[in-house]
Amino acid sequence: MDDIFLTTIEVIGTIAFAISGIRLAAAKEFDWFGAYTIGLVTAIGGGTLRDVLLDITVFWMETPLYLLVTGLSLALVIIFRKTLVRFNRTLFLFDAIGLALFVVIGIQKSLACGFPMWVAIAMGMITGSFGGVTRDILINEEPLFFRKDIYATACIAGGIIYWIIDCAGGSPVLQQSACAVTVIGLRVCAIRYNWALPVLKYERKNDTDRQ
Amino acid sequence: MDDIFLTTIEVIGTIAFAISGIRLAAAKEFDWFGAYTIGLVTAIGGGTLRDVLLDITVFWMETPLYLLVTGLSLALVIIFRKTLVRFNRTLFLFDAIGLALFVVIGIQKSLACGFPMWVAIAMGMITGSFGGVTRDILINEEPLFFRKDIYATACIAGGIIYWIIDCAGGSPVLQQSACAVTVIGLRVCAIRYNWALPVLKYERKNDTDRQ
Amino acid sequence: MDDIFLTTIEVIGTIAFAISGIRLAAAKEFDWFGAYTIGLVTAIGGGTLRDVLLDITVFWMETPLYLLVTGLSLALVIIFRKTLVRFNRTLFLFDAIGLALFVVIGIQKSLACGFPMWVAIAMGMITGSFGGVTRDILINEEPLFFRKDIYATACIAGGIIYWIIDCAGGSPVLQQSACAVTVIGLRVCAIRYNWALPVLKYERKNDTDRQ
Repeated sequence: MDDIFLTTIEVIGTIAFAISGIRLAAAKEFDWFGAYTIGLVTAIGGGTLRDVLLDITVFWMETPLYLLVTGLSLALVIIFRKTLVRFNRTLFLFDAIGLALFVVIGIQKSLACGFPMWVAIAMGMITGSFGGVTRDILINEEPLFFRKDIYATACIAGGIIYWIIDCAGGSPVLQQSACAVTVIGLRVCAIRYNWALPVLKYERKNDTDRQ
Repeated sequence: MDDIFLTTIEVIGTIAFAISGIRLAAAKEFDWFGAYTIGLVTAIGGGTLRDVLLDITVFWMETPLYLLVTGLSLALVIIFRKTLVRFNRTLFLFDAIGLALFVVIGIQKSLACGFPMWVAIAMGMITGSFGGVTRDILINEEPLFFRKDIYATACIAGGIIYWIIDCAGGSPVLQQSACAVTVIGLRVCAIRYNWALPVLKYERKNDTDRQ
Repeated sequence: MDDIFLTTIEVIGTIAFAISGIRLAAAKEFDWFGAYTIGLVTAIGGGTLRDVLLDITVFWMETPLYLLVTGLSLALVIIFRKTLVRFNRTLFLFDAIGLALFVVIGIQKSLACGFPMWVAIAMGMITGSFGGVTRDILINEEPLFFRKDIYATACIAGGIIYWIIDCAGGSPVLQQSACAVTVIGLRVCAIRYNWALPVLKYERKNDTDRQ
């Protein structure tokens, strides 16, 4: 029962991530296969790096589910191209839910491998963010990740909540739920209230060199 | 006997891939070492990602052959710079043959690791394509991969032929030959007849946001 | 005693690498977290790829030292923003020392894994250079690596010196010191005397196609 629920959420998250990649690829006039690849990389890139770093079998090599779901996402974009734009808010919510679940999965997998909590939080962040970074590199755009609203920071905040509840002796379900709610809440607030981290100030190197 | 034949083809494929990388690097006025690196990444990038994902020893760390062959390729480009342009067709054919062999090797290695056929096809595609994608990222160009003529698609088509003949009970040699012929044939046709996949249509997001 | 010395040097090298990444990120107006990530990738990227290729536990997952030191580097850049520019020469020297130590560590780790010397030299080079390449990809700049003054070449030269002294029967300490001195010396000379490798000449493809 619980497994079906988790898998359903994971599939929804994968579709949301894949669609975000496919739509960016479409904006660059990629062909179908290129768009599929960008969608796939967005959806599975983070988990792939996580599994390589954890030195375990890469998750998408154990079941064709993720390749199929990405194919489904491509079909959705091709067929519902014109109506899809009306669902931007829904897609954003799916994306936030997917992100939250990816973070929880990343943390759990790392802990199961015997790594300490700080590694698990880093892996949760990598699972959630690295797919989008790879997508931006492949379409040759500067990764939004480094400028945009709270994103990776939301993953880390979720991980820290997970840790605090763990230390306080909370049950695993509570840890996971609180972590997920934190990630989703921060994402929604970041978009709604334009939350952002401070920009790093810079001393021009040219002026410096002249000194 | 068979091994010598396969190694010869593999060396030819590696040289063709390396030369394609080195020439692109030369167009960007890289220095010798930079050009060598780009050539090397083009030639071994796909197999490296494949071996990392399969969690086996990376192939080029077992024999210096690939580093030496890339050095030979650099020497060829430096020495025969002016005459090389006349052999563009020959180089394209070498490239197609190398691609086909890389796909066959990727499939065989994955099956030998106990992965199912759909993983093997994905690995065949990665072995053939990922080197070129990394090359394009390193020279800061948008990967041609996502727009150009049938390339990764040819790798996948070859893999599917391999699978069909496997299911039909064909011998390993037949599987490999048919797979290679499919890849080479599709590449030649794609260039000759300008075959391409359909481009993904796009609804402008700006118009959307205004609604 | 020796360990404390090595760790101190390694921390200094990590800070120098991280600061170089953080300052480039600041020039692109990244936010704090983006700058931290770029600094971290610059400092640990090379060792991460090395450990993945060697198939051993990635070094920064064994101790939080590297994540903390990068945080310290970010704090240094934020606090001493204006005075830091006066220390460009010191930072360059730290960077050269860090590079030299990263090369030595890369070589030693590879040999300890049972790989031959030529693999170890390649890993020394990867440890020293790959972080900077990833940094340049993430900030969407063409990797300087491929054009700039002797950099990866210095790593390889250091590795070859290591090898020669090994073959000549020199002690491990002598091998490591000579390797490090070579890397630092070549870096200093490259900057001071503008040493560079020859650029690869290029025959225009357009002219070619017209023939």
